[in-house]
Amino acid sequence: MKKIAISIGDLNGIGIALALQNHHLVKKFITPMYIIDKEMLSLASELLKLKIPDDFECVEYVSQGFKIMPSTISKESGRYAFESFKIAVELAKDGKVDGIMTLPIHKKAWEMAGINYKGHTDALRDFFDSEAIMMLGCEKMFVALYTEHIPLSQVALESRDALKFGRFLENFYQSIKDKLQIHESIAVLALNPHAGDYGVLGDEEKILNSVIDNFNLKYQKKIFSNTIVPDIAFSQKNRDKYRFFIAMYHDQGLIPLKALYFEESINISLNLPILRTSVDHGTAFDIAYTDTLPNNLSYLNALKYYL
Amino acid sequence: MKKIAISIGDLNGIGIALALQNHHLVKKFITPMYIIDKEMLSLASELLKLKIPDDFECVEYVSQGFKIMPSTISKESGRYAFESFKIAVELAKDGKVDGIMTLPIHKKAWEMAGINYKGHTDALRDFFDSEAIMMLGCEKMFVALYTEHIPLSQVALESRDALKFGRFLENFYQSIKDKLQIHESIAVLALNPHAGDYGVLGDEEKILNSVIDNFNLKYQKKIFSNTIVPDIAFSQKNRDKYRFFIAMYHDQGLIPLKALYFEESINISLNLPILRTSVDHGTAFDIAYTDTLPNNLSYLNALKYYL
Repeated sequence: MKKIAISIGDLNGIGIALALQNHHLVKKFITPMYIIDKEMLSLASELLKLKIPDDFECVEYVSQGFKIMPSTISKESGRYAFESFKIAVELAKDGKVDGIMTLPIHKKAWEMAGINYKGHTDALRDFFDSEAIMMLGCEKMFVALYTEHIPLSQVALESRDALKFGRFLENFYQSIKDKLQIHESIAVLALNPHAGDYGVLGDEEKILNSVIDNFNLKYQKKIFSNTIVPDIAFSQKNRDKYRFFIAMYHDQGLIPLKALYFEESINISLNLPILRTSVDHGTAFDIAYTDTLPNNLSYLNALKYYL
Repeated sequence: MKKIAISIGDLNGIGIALALQNHHLVKKFITPMYIIDKEMLSLASELLKLKIPDDFECVEYVSQGFKIMPSTISKESGRYAFESFKIAVELAKDGKVDGIMTLPIHKKAWEMAGINYKGHTDALRDFFDSEAIMMLGCEKMFVALYTEHIPLSQVALESRDALKFGRFLENFYQSIKDKLQIHESIAVLALNPHAGDYGVLGDEEKILNSVIDNFNLKYQKKIFSNTIVPDIAFSQKNRDKYRFFIAMYHDQGLIPLKALYFEESINISLNLPILRTSVDHGTAFDIAYTDTLPNNLSYLNALKYYL
């Protein structure tokens, strides 16, 4: 069974409740190591009125303790979440765990704590100086993003960069090839409507397809599909055929994912020296430390990815 | 009950089977007038081994008769489909029917017949010299497209045209206001990921929102939403809140529509002197004149739109 470090996220949010409530389920398929210390764990469990399971493995010390204030953005909580994350990353780097899973942080709390990263992915890119690939989804459908957080006006230009696109395909394939069945292809979406309609609606598909053809030729296998007409890429028929999709831009991939599988989805950082998964939701301050149970689908799926 | 002219589409495809098989259902909610003549109707019904219902109203003459060749692209069939469409349009223009519904044509057959239109919408734009608006969907969710068949690289520029966008909002609102409930708002999608994230990921939203604000102010009602973050626009929660969505570009609207409601969807041409609906599928040559029944969801919905 794989050992996974779980960074505890913002303690004023729902992360710790997810950890405590689902420990009995989680330990059946991974060995969790929670990156929280006894002091803060006790405070949280009292507030939540949840017992700490006997086999709830945590760490000696994370950062200075503080008073948990449910649903509040605070510097202290931001700092603690960041230190927890850093320890998880170190453990993975040193091979003491097989991967990490991050519970949600509050970006504003990080900012208040003087942490100059927009989020986990941003920090990981910097820690490892690497072109991390962002993939989101669930077992039924994973979407990797070729371009991410850039204005739509810049997407077409990025799609003309054959070298970059080729590197992306190689990195992505190396990152997930163990997950592929024999003869399973990965769907690559076209950039333009109707996949350009023979050049009438844009010609980036010519560049993309020539990169894809070269790649498949090199491996002597149809690893990547040729560019698929975007509007039918996520029809039931295509979802029966493909599990992995490459979207050329943020919303091309995330719109259908969130329309179909909003609550089940997880976020995965690929192409890094360590593997990291994450829930695809935030700190949910609206229900933190209340009687409303947080939906655990994304949390369980983020850990099941290590199966 | 509204009277609707049904242009018969490509007679080598599935259109006429849909018309014959569903007449008993269709006549319960509209009065259909099929734009086919007795000669061709007899030929098709014999080939299909389907009886012609007694109250199947058709027209005297459409165009020169020809031999139906199932699943074949032919000049004759293209010509006939175009003439049928033209008659339907004339009937609507003259107020003899309340609207038209078009069965699928084959674009290549039109081309072979020397008809210089890419399809029905293209022809309608020319007939009426009007900025037709393309809306697709079903009762649960309709998506209107601000830009349609243009390369993705041109979409951002079009979104900066405040005058054009304002005209689009006005035309769209006038076209569907009778379908809106009291206090029902129409969702407008942002162009950029995260709706631009306060300008960091693009600034077109500022232009779009200023046009929207002016529009709502003019009508003293929240008719249009401000730009919604695209990736959550079609989540279940937002689909419970909105029925009408404006997508800034082709795939932003059609990807989620086809992921969620592929078979139920219809195509509607708005902002024309006449109203036109259409099935959202093609001639289905793979099953035309075989024992496989065509799925009638899109056909029935295209006629139910007139309810």
